[in-house]
Amino acid sequence: MIIGIVGGGQLARMMALAGIPLGMRFIFLDPAEDACAAPLGEHLCGHYDNTELLSTMADKADVVTYEFENVPESAITFLADKVDVYPAAQALATARDRIHEKRVFQDLGISTVPFAPVGSFDELQDAVRSIGLPAILKTRTMGYDGKGQFVLRHSDDLESAWNQLGDAPLILEGFANFRREISVISVRGRDGEMRFYPLSENHHRDGILHTAHSLPDDPEQSQAEDYARRIMEKLDYVGVMALELFDTGDKLLANEMAPRVHNSGHWTIEGAVTSQFENHLRAVLGLPLGSTKAKGYATMVNLIGTIPDTSQLLSEAGIHLHSYSKKPYPGRKVGHATVWSASKPTRQKFALNL
Amino acid sequence: MIIGIVGGGQLARMMALAGIPLGMRFIFLDPAEDACAAPLGEHLCGHYDNTELLSTMADKADVVTYEFENVPESAITFLADKVDVYPAAQALATARDRIHEKRVFQDLGISTVPFAPVGSFDELQDAVRSIGLPAILKTRTMGYDGKGQFVLRHSDDLESAWNQLGDAPLILEGFANFRREISVISVRGRDGEMRFYPLSENHHRDGILHTAHSLPDDPEQSQAEDYARRIMEKLDYVGVMALELFDTGDKLLANEMAPRVHNSGHWTIEGAVTSQFENHLRAVLGLPLGSTKAKGYATMVNLIGTIPDTSQLLSEAGIHLHSYSKKPYPGRKVGHATVWSASKPTRQKFALNL
Repeated sequence: MIIGIVGGGQLARMMALAGIPLGMRFIFLDPAEDACAAPLGEHLCGHYDNTELLSTMADKADVVTYEFENVPESAITFLADKVDVYPAAQALATARDRIHEKRVFQDLGISTVPFAPVGSFDELQDAVRSIGLPAILKTRTMGYDGKGQFVLRHSDDLESAWNQLGDAPLILEGFANFRREISVISVRGRDGEMRFYPLSENHHRDGILHTAHSLPDDPEQSQAEDYARRIMEKLDYVGVMALELFDTGDKLLANEMAPRVHNSGHWTIEGAVTSQFENHLRAVLGLPLGSTKAKGYATMVNLIGTIPDTSQLLSEAGIHLHSYSKKPYPGRKVGHATVWSASKPTRQKFALNL
Repeated sequence: MIIGIVGGGQLARMMALAGIPLGMRFIFLDPAEDACAAPLGEHLCGHYDNTELLSTMADKADVVTYEFENVPESAITFLADKVDVYPAAQALATARDRIHEKRVFQDLGISTVPFAPVGSFDELQDAVRSIGLPAILKTRTMGYDGKGQFVLRHSDDLESAWNQLGDAPLILEGFANFRREISVISVRGRDGEMRFYPLSENHHRDGILHTAHSLPDDPEQSQAEDYARRIMEKLDYVGVMALELFDTGDKLLANEMAPRVHNSGHWTIEGAVTSQFENHLRAVLGLPLGSTKAKGYATMVNLIGTIPDTSQLLSEAGIHLHSYSKKPYPGRKVGHATVWSASKPTRQKFALNL
């Protein structure tokens, strides 16, 4: 079985590491010559809309998937004419636009923060009047890791935010008063079977995910699963889907979905019976899904900029290093580390040291 | 860090899969064009005594190790002049000759079956008189998976066994009355630190390992560890070592050691905190050793000849498939499957079905 992946970054790399033991082979499309997944398969080096390379991938692969939602829609449409692509275009179109996404949530009766589309400065002022401040102005598409967004605290923040973002379609979102950010990683097979991982509790630094703790037996598990189930059924979703949620203590608000394996699910490599990467591959290939049950407790910490001294890192008990073999660069995710323990840990000092 | 591995089979492949997430890169020396580790690194395609390729490996690699003990001694000597090689030549020389190996065990006060070197038909007759029948006549070197050995049950078996094996140096071993075959996978770092995995209980079919069960908290654990500790200290061993033992119910008899990662330790990928593959790499690179503690219960079954239907196999709860992406061939190890469970399982029906 040959799997084509649009994108050759760390998510593609970890999918390949999960799939190679299942006898799978991989083809990656990525413009970066040093794409970190490339050594694990065939690398088609070029842009995502390069139809010649897309054709090559479609010819060779049994199924195609992607590692990020900002793939040009035209690329997915082009591929889907020639080969099975999962998750399908409908899921991608929903996830790539914050307005579409939140409207799907609303239609399904899933709570969100208040929001409004913003296409002009007048609309921004209207939206602020109706939603109130503080609020967050975001680009509708292409945002990630806190990029493409501004927090508006005072009415005089509007103009500078508009000047910086106003060229793109925008969304204004109300502020949630939440006690924690969580996510649920789910998977749905081609036959409609669904499985859900234990929740993750997520902590950010500078807009980038820093730490994710696995939460076996959390009281909000069933509510989160219910949200994810509704979305996956509505979109006839196939593959792993991440749903980020704010837990207000009172209810869960859906923040955003990602139509792919997700950083907050990296702990499943050690902390669940089947990793999110293997289950994504099983799903898109139409194979039976693997168990998503917790296997002990896991905490994942992103390694940003550079990998710390390996010898020191590996001296920590129960630690697992996942280097992406990327060039160090400030702010870049170059790896992650997961600490595993059989019994419920006190929140690791480890997590604070990285 | 670049690791050179002499051999490019499934053990090298699984070492690479364990090492890539640690940021390591791999070079394999293997004469087979379709060596199954090759897609995971650089493949030097040639014989193990090809000094040009050995020089290339020595130049590029930070450390060299091997995946089987029948590497020509000259290759290891050649490499060791230029680059660190672990386990060192002394361990290899001991493990590759059944007589040397058993004498080391004896010198360390480790029980074995009775044995005698056999260099002539006269010596064979003498050995049978002293050891008794049944007994097993084996080549001193190069045997694996039951190859190169004959069971002698009656005195008239001697001549035909001698005719078939007599060209090679031989050993006659007495029969052990054992209630089970077990092994202990151990690891020793460059600094002398040692760690031991929970025992494996091993079942063979047609001379080939078929099933290995992890045995957390087995009563023979400390005796087995004591044997392994003595051997590793004596040989100033660095890396993972497997020690196969017969449990007579009364005591443990050392059968043989393997100076490498071992088939009976494949369950450590899912069933221990750190796999034998990662710990071997950590050891030979001088990194801190990882925890060898059990993570639930695991049973490994070798897949011989061909991989069964993947879809059917993956429908088993808690199963992990490890295909080696080798061409199917009768009698060939083409993969293994591991069933993992959180609590102590009844001996799996699964194991019997494969």
